Amino acid sequence: MTDRRRPGRRPGSADTRGEILTAARRVFAEKGFDKATVRGIAREAQVDPALVHHYFDTKEGMFAAAMELPINPQQILPVLFDGPREEIGERLVRTILTLTADEKTRAPVLALLRSAMSNEQAVGMVREFFTSALLYQVADRLGVPQLRVEAGFAQMLGIVLARYVLKLEPLASAGHDELVEILAPTIQRYFTG
Amino acid sequence: MTDRRRPGRRPGSADTRGEILTAARRVFAEKGFDKATVRGIAREAQVDPALVHHYFDTKEGMFAAAMELPINPQQILPVLFDGPREEIGERLVRTILTLTADEKTRAPVLALLRSAMSNEQAVGMVREFFTSALLYQVADRLGVPQLRVEAGFAQMLGIVLARYVLKLEPLASAGHDELVEILAPTIQRYFTG
Repeated sequence: MTDRRRPGRRPGSADTRGEILTAARRVFAEKGFDKATVRGIAREAQVDPALVHHYFDTKEGMFAAAMELPINPQQILPVLFDGPREEIGERLVRTILTLTADEKTRAPVLALLRSAMSNEQAVGMVREFFTSALLYQVADRLGVPQLRVEAGFAQMLGIVLARYVLKLEPLASAGHDELVEILAPTIQRYFTG
Repeated sequence: MTDRRRPGRRPGSADTRGEILTAARRVFAEKGFDKATVRGIAREAQVDPALVHHYFDTKEGMFAAAMELPINPQQILPVLFDGPREEIGERLVRTILTLTADEKTRAPVLALLRSAMSNEQAVGMVREFFTSALLYQVADRLGVPQLRVEAGFAQMLGIVLARYVLKLEPLASAGHDELVEILAPTIQRYFTG
């Protein structure tokens, strides 16, 4: 513990990474996602900004790691945009159903939503992260009004909560194909209708 | 306090009603909505079941009062069903937007959802209440598969959370007409498509 912040330690040590993440959680919670900077997090962790970049390519990646999200929206978005535009509804619904079916992916996302529901500071951070890293990107890439993207986000947010938190039946037990059939046209209409 | 449970007190006293509600909250939390009975709540409150009926017409009404919900789904459902079937999507979206725009209505509903998100005992009670008092009724009255009703519920749940908890913009500031235009066709398709 005593030599943690001594200059000259190896950049590869697990502690450095952990220290950056602890600092990141503090800075994201205080400043929100948009106003937090790599430089500010490096200062809080007392490391060189280059080292933060070495561990985490982007601010989105650092946020995902700090919140223990197993996936970063930047990894999902290419999947959405890669394919015919008239099938984006199906791709989006199927991707979200697949990701949330895995408890290891789902649990940290639900934890983030729970903290947003009960904590005013967390809500700002979560809102800014979803907006900057996900909703704005989709609206921009598809040339769709952000309100329509948010309507689609709300549909899938409600599905995940109704399926895994409220555990409404038959929704909680429904198969992916059945849900894609019902939900994909909704997302498709919001995004291209 | 000492004479509260003495037989022969006046049925009209505010304490009796409060005592029934306290008992109801305890019984709903323990047994869930479906297994709770008027008789069991009367026993817990040490009053005559007829007195419970005198204060609360139905179990749904008692639940709404116990959870301090300002509205009972049984009061909303007739509004939904009263009118052309091809406009039910618009009626439902407009009703939910209007009800949740009022902070006095919204706050206890959000409190119920928050407790469901953080408490395994609450979640069962909330699930059963939504299913019995709302989702099952809609599916039954419209002759629609319950899965499709739940998809519509999920859409509106997501909208209320994204608008009032996450406060995503532009969704949080969007007007009712604009939202009805986007969302009504979704609900209409789920219910009659």
